[in-house]
Amino acid sequence: MNDEPITKRLVEIYTGNGKGKTSAALGGALRALGQGLRVHIIYFMKGDYPYGERNVLARLPNISFQPFGHLHFINPQNVKEEEREQARQALQAAREAIASGNFDLVVLDEVNLAASWKLIEVEDIIGLIKEKPEDVELILTGRHADARLIEMADLVTEMVEIKHPFRKGIEARRGFDY
Amino acid sequence: MNDEPITKRLVEIYTGNGKGKTSAALGGALRALGQGLRVHIIYFMKGDYPYGERNVLARLPNISFQPFGHLHFINPQNVKEEEREQARQALQAAREAIASGNFDLVVLDEVNLAASWKLIEVEDIIGLIKEKPEDVELILTGRHADARLIEMADLVTEMVEIKHPFRKGIEARRGFDY
Repeated sequence: MNDEPITKRLVEIYTGNGKGKTSAALGGALRALGQGLRVHIIYFMKGDYPYGERNVLARLPNISFQPFGHLHFINPQNVKEEEREQARQALQAAREAIASGNFDLVVLDEVNLAASWKLIEVEDIIGLIKEKPEDVELILTGRHADARLIEMADLVTEMVEIKHPFRKGIEARRGFDY
Repeated sequence: MNDEPITKRLVEIYTGNGKGKTSAALGGALRALGQGLRVHIIYFMKGDYPYGERNVLARLPNISFQPFGHLHFINPQNVKEEEREQARQALQAAREAIASGNFDLVVLDEVNLAASWKLIEVEDIIGLIKEKPEDVELILTGRHADARLIEMADLVTEMVEIKHPFRKGIEARRGFDY
């Protein structure tokens, strides 16, 4: 760690259909922690999923997280009101975390997909970005990032699936996929 | 954590010119740790770079890392013998870690780029993959992954740069880029 000032805080987006979006956000969180920054992660969907990383994150200082949504997978063709309500609560939690002054980095996990599936409105995310204090870095993950969000972001990486073991019939693996 | 057996161990590659490759590997390491797995990370280049994550990783159980190379950036048009030697040492360390039986996940950070820049031979990495015990997961990161490695891998994500703040003249930022 050094005393070099950290001045620029940006908006980063990890989108695309390939594996590595949430992982990249987690790695970014780890890096920020290692430099003494304070991190908050909000999971917009699959909040009860037993993601392995939470066991570790929960033991580290300066990082907190709020899971929303449920273990079952949402059917985007038939979104239930209760699923929308969970995503709206996540959005409100995001608003509060970003404005709180308690965090240097706020990760909004799967927020892009939540908007794409109309659990929340893209306009609400745009509002979050516009109202973001200058000293807060935002990371947005999830497939199907809206073009308006990409336009507003400073850094955008598209994770493109070249190969995925799901295609070979290999199911999600504990320790590697969750 | 649950007791479900972990059977399939694969080869994952994160390549492409966008941000998120090393971060995705780190996030993957965190996830594996959270499920009780043992992780080893070998940095093939920029071994002395003050990556923030190492401060945190060093505090966690079941994870270790070996950095090789130096802080200065390598000029791929003028690779020095000593830089090759560092990469060869990294390769040897990888060989030993993979065969040791001590690790469930071995991350070879920037190994793709090390091969692309001819610090090491692609054939050597192919050898690592071929000799890998079935119960070891491998993650290879770095731009310019060789087509033969992609062919052998089970999971490949290309991180495509859509936008990067470097293009706007923003330099690498402590806590976010290192």
